[in-house]
Amino acid sequence: MTNRPPAEIGMPLEKVDTPALLVDLDALERNLRCMADAVAGTGLKLRPHAKTHKSPVIGLLQMAHGAVGVCCQKVSEAEAMVLGGVPDVYVSNEIVGAPKLARLAALARQARVATCVDDPVHVRGLSEAAQAFGVELRVLVEIDVGANRCGVAPGAPAAALARQVAEAPGLRFGGLQAYQGASQHLRGHAERREAIQAAVAKVLETKEALERAGIPCECVTGAGTGTFTFERDSGVYNELQAGSYIFMDSDYGKNLDADGQPVRTFEHSLFVYATVMSRPTPERVILDAGLKALSVDSGMPVVDGMPDVVYARASDEHGRLELSDPKRPLALGDKLRLIPGHCDPTVNMYDWYVGVRNGRVEALWPITARGALL
Amino acid sequence: MTNRPPAEIGMPLEKVDTPALLVDLDALERNLRCMADAVAGTGLKLRPHAKTHKSPVIGLLQMAHGAVGVCCQKVSEAEAMVLGGVPDVYVSNEIVGAPKLARLAALARQARVATCVDDPVHVRGLSEAAQAFGVELRVLVEIDVGANRCGVAPGAPAAALARQVAEAPGLRFGGLQAYQGASQHLRGHAERREAIQAAVAKVLETKEALERAGIPCECVTGAGTGTFTFERDSGVYNELQAGSYIFMDSDYGKNLDADGQPVRTFEHSLFVYATVMSRPTPERVILDAGLKALSVDSGMPVVDGMPDVVYARASDEHGRLELSDPKRPLALGDKLRLIPGHCDPTVNMYDWYVGVRNGRVEALWPITARGALL
Repeated sequence: MTNRPPAEIGMPLEKVDTPALLVDLDALERNLRCMADAVAGTGLKLRPHAKTHKSPVIGLLQMAHGAVGVCCQKVSEAEAMVLGGVPDVYVSNEIVGAPKLARLAALARQARVATCVDDPVHVRGLSEAAQAFGVELRVLVEIDVGANRCGVAPGAPAAALARQVAEAPGLRFGGLQAYQGASQHLRGHAERREAIQAAVAKVLETKEALERAGIPCECVTGAGTGTFTFERDSGVYNELQAGSYIFMDSDYGKNLDADGQPVRTFEHSLFVYATVMSRPTPERVILDAGLKALSVDSGMPVVDGMPDVVYARASDEHGRLELSDPKRPLALGDKLRLIPGHCDPTVNMYDWYVGVRNGRVEALWPITARGALL
Repeated sequence: MTNRPPAEIGMPLEKVDTPALLVDLDALERNLRCMADAVAGTGLKLRPHAKTHKSPVIGLLQMAHGAVGVCCQKVSEAEAMVLGGVPDVYVSNEIVGAPKLARLAALARQARVATCVDDPVHVRGLSEAAQAFGVELRVLVEIDVGANRCGVAPGAPAAALARQVAEAPGLRFGGLQAYQGASQHLRGHAERREAIQAAVAKVLETKEALERAGIPCECVTGAGTGTFTFERDSGVYNELQAGSYIFMDSDYGKNLDADGQPVRTFEHSLFVYATVMSRPTPERVILDAGLKALSVDSGMPVVDGMPDVVYARASDEHGRLELSDPKRPLALGDKLRLIPGHCDPTVNMYDWYVGVRNGRVEALWPITARGALL
């Protein structure tokens, strides 16, 4: 059962029921254009990660701004994107298990579909599924460029796995998946640059091994919002996967640029709209948005436009604000905007985006891939 | 759009797709009986909190084991319970805003409905809504018994608010909401006992103030899984709201009893079923269940039955296991059970419970109030 939307088109913002997930449509569009400008003229492809927004509506907006398609992390996300009109999906993740493999291969009859591997088990599974559905799947080899998550070791081991992909019936070797996830939220500019320099060295080592083996490498894909300018300018990557730029987590707002100033390339465009439900003391305000309305894995949300008000604690259905000024007017029924610490798992709790422009609801977009775990 | 279930009835457990939310039906039933036994003969009412399970199926099982109804935190949860057949719901939370108030009052035409207040604004809103729908709402006064969240101050301020409730058209004063949420996860038995002793003192102070004011107090309701035996034996509480007992968070498993041993009154009955999707090194195993499959606000999940394996880090769609024994057999495609650190926000990410008994899928229960934020 999908939950009812918390708003109607045309409603003034103040009437939107809470908790609700707001998108500032002007800010979203500025982020779309800003990323398009950042990639324009470089010859690189942009394939933003749809795990952030889980919405084919936003995926298609990204394509209208130059993206070649989207990345996904789950087959069910890819299905939601294709069914919503996105014609080119890349599951930038390893897929295990017959049901998921069959669904991926079936999807390749409706859209351009790719995925990645880091083990011969993945290669065999994909090859069998591709043959069963009579499709050819583009398959990249994931290398571990420093994130210590998935990925085969760079160099010869990666080339050996690429050989297996190239020789497997139904598969085509599509290049290297080289995402350095652990570097995205390093605060210092130099730290992030060095992490990506190290990743680039591992990609180069692998490209050389592929060349020695006579295996062409058409694509090196990776990069996130925290580092994409380094990958872009590396001369090695030719596809960028940054996704969070569309919304901007409050945590990303803590990254610093080369001058030691907070990076402000993109704007916060995603907010959780919340209502004051109790003010038991002048210093304590309770909101109706807690752990089921906001993911706190990367820290508490920030109260938009109220630097003196701290969201101090989240329980399941409550958020506790601490006010340094006990006379600050915040009354029961007042509504305010929270900037989530981490957008992706926050989005995953909602069924609807409420798109707002000029203080009025302009769009209700279903979050089609919400809860798409399989 | 509701996501497809990850299983079919009759399927062996090993075939269930992942990530999936498993319920061990035998353990669930033992927990139901254990709580019924703990309350039997005391004269207290049991009104378990449905915010834990968000499923009227489980709410009705609780009623079959003696519960008088359920608690909810949101009006939309209460709606899901009533539409699923639960005839008695108490929203143990303050409700603000005309749309929610109208929905609560409308619901009172279909079921027994109650809620609580800590401010005259709530009283006015409920009274207007009750009159508009021609219903009488049972309204409790929430007092702050030490949780520092919602709640009016105990004693005279609470009695003054109770007077307003009693005099408001369409409302009936129903008693005191006195939940000490901050005490539930205190590790030591003595700490929890003292916290509830302090809460009981605040309830008694308030009951005396009500008595002086000539306002009868028919109900004192509160208690969670961590402390309910103290409230039960207090002589003051007459309704218990414990909810987590049905599943048991791994965090609750760290509470100690009077002998300094982990409390083992209830069993873990809820698990996230996950698949090994990558094993890049002998010491590192990657699962397909991360921040969108598990809430980590109360710590990482525990790997069931594998004390030597540590779930060390969650990213959005990955969980990283660290193995102290690099020879431990855990191969791609193997599936294992994780005990969530915090069940309530974990359940809120799923659409289906997969009920398992004797290694076979016996039930698929929709999580009807998943994402019920309004």
